[in-house]
Amino acid sequence: MTASRHHVPGPVHRLWTPDHEPVLEVASGEVVEFDAQECAAGQLDGFRNGAPVPELDLDLLYPLVGPVLVEGAEPGDAVELEVLEFRSGTWGWTSVLPDFGLLAEDFPDLHVHRWELGERTAEFQGVATVPLRPFLGVMGATPDTSEPLSPFPPGTFGGNIDTRDITVGARILLPVQVPGARIMVGDPHAAQGDGEVCGAAIEASLSGALRITLHKGLTLPAPQFRTPGALRPGIEDAGYYATMGVAPDLMQASQDAVRAMIDHLGRTYGIAPLDAYVLASVVVDLKISEVVDRPNWVVSAYLPLSVMH
Amino acid sequence: MTASRHHVPGPVHRLWTPDHEPVLEVASGEVVEFDAQECAAGQLDGFRNGAPVPELDLDLLYPLVGPVLVEGAEPGDAVELEVLEFRSGTWGWTSVLPDFGLLAEDFPDLHVHRWELGERTAEFQGVATVPLRPFLGVMGATPDTSEPLSPFPPGTFGGNIDTRDITVGARILLPVQVPGARIMVGDPHAAQGDGEVCGAAIEASLSGALRITLHKGLTLPAPQFRTPGALRPGIEDAGYYATMGVAPDLMQASQDAVRAMIDHLGRTYGIAPLDAYVLASVVVDLKISEVVDRPNWVVSAYLPLSVMH
Repeated sequence: MTASRHHVPGPVHRLWTPDHEPVLEVASGEVVEFDAQECAAGQLDGFRNGAPVPELDLDLLYPLVGPVLVEGAEPGDAVELEVLEFRSGTWGWTSVLPDFGLLAEDFPDLHVHRWELGERTAEFQGVATVPLRPFLGVMGATPDTSEPLSPFPPGTFGGNIDTRDITVGARILLPVQVPGARIMVGDPHAAQGDGEVCGAAIEASLSGALRITLHKGLTLPAPQFRTPGALRPGIEDAGYYATMGVAPDLMQASQDAVRAMIDHLGRTYGIAPLDAYVLASVVVDLKISEVVDRPNWVVSAYLPLSVMH
Repeated sequence: MTASRHHVPGPVHRLWTPDHEPVLEVASGEVVEFDAQECAAGQLDGFRNGAPVPELDLDLLYPLVGPVLVEGAEPGDAVELEVLEFRSGTWGWTSVLPDFGLLAEDFPDLHVHRWELGERTAEFQGVATVPLRPFLGVMGATPDTSEPLSPFPPGTFGGNIDTRDITVGARILLPVQVPGARIMVGDPHAAQGDGEVCGAAIEASLSGALRITLHKGLTLPAPQFRTPGALRPGIEDAGYYATMGVAPDLMQASQDAVRAMIDHLGRTYGIAPLDAYVLASVVVDLKISEVVDRPNWVVSAYLPLSVMH
């Protein structure tokens, strides 16, 4: 199938609202190409590891591409985005921000790590080779809101869902809340573990192409997606090392599992706690092992062993 | 290596306490063979699908094999159990119990489904073929407790952790809290998804062999485990369909993701909600996609498509 392809023009936007001027309108089945800037919008371009972190203008964060109107889309429909192509840039960054991240109390200070990205992997401090699997942290059909919404929290409309498996070959279905769907995307990531525990992925600009398909009358309570095959091809063949958190609250169990993983990375590979937290955020997956054996739930943090040197 | 092998004799126990008479003592490196009865202890042997569910004597639930003493194990050590062999029996069951399970409010009534187990799979109502991956729901080194503890809630000592990936080839490390470790195991499962959402797996008796290895001075905050390779070999090649829950609480997000999966199974495959809930409990995996984008977290429920007809 040769669908017509459109490049999504600027400007970018930083809020969810139905009031933005649309930048493009497409028909179901058409393909959009776009360039998505990393979520600091260039403010860390000059940063190098070990140097002071520049002060960030928070008003510039989360530039989103769009909105793209989808012809005929109405509330109660779903719009599918099929990932045809994602290409990361040549560098990226991961931050630990004060008062932010799963272990904010353990890691109170600002920290940024810059990554040099190869074609398929990125090296980490001589101890790990991180496989790159680019995806968009933010994908959404604009919510029906009278107040403009921050791009930061995800919602049942999608948005900042930070879900690593929506990579090339995957298709995500987004619930339509306003006429034309008004699709916006952004916050590109080169790699991330399930959970994104330190609060950031490998944040890296990305160029991509998405096929947009309208599903009339498909009403969904939240996004749903389909992957084309195995989730971690070439990554999990060496197995996993997993640490457990067992607690009466899933958040507490998640924190305990990640703390144990940070201890494990230190004991086994000699990685300092802050570096282990950053590495865990980009390669370790959080799974809910059981959520029924009252009063204690189990969350496990899975480290793919192929990553470690 | 030819280690000496011991069969774990009876009696079984139904509480965690350091006061049980040990049934066996082994040295590090030795292998124990055992037969673990399903957690209803035979009370559902005569049940057939569609028949009335017999009243269960709750005092008979959760028969555990052991305790096995490990020579030289002291508090602050870890005991490793390596899974050498797990063989399920020929049938199993999955229950939905009142006031129990992730969606207790949606499914208030008692329901039991009996499964006939093949060598590697079990059929479900003509719509799904469930791959069997036997494991033990309960594995633990006895906690240091003066009050006997129910076998039902897991803890940082282990116990009813219901973690599906600790199958043949995996090794679990259990923290030692009392002299001799006093290992007990039970609650065998033939298949389960991460989360065990309806509250039960395919509960099926199992015979197995575990190698027990003592790690002196390895102090762990909770169990940890290692898998020998890919987690879902032969299961995920057809990809996944995933539903999202997006909410400010991980429990709510888990419930929303599973509700959306039950809707999806109904819409796509014509499966009734109660049957979809049971099927999800044995094949669907819950992952924490992100747990940092305040105030909303994303839990995704992953259905392996190879399972569905």
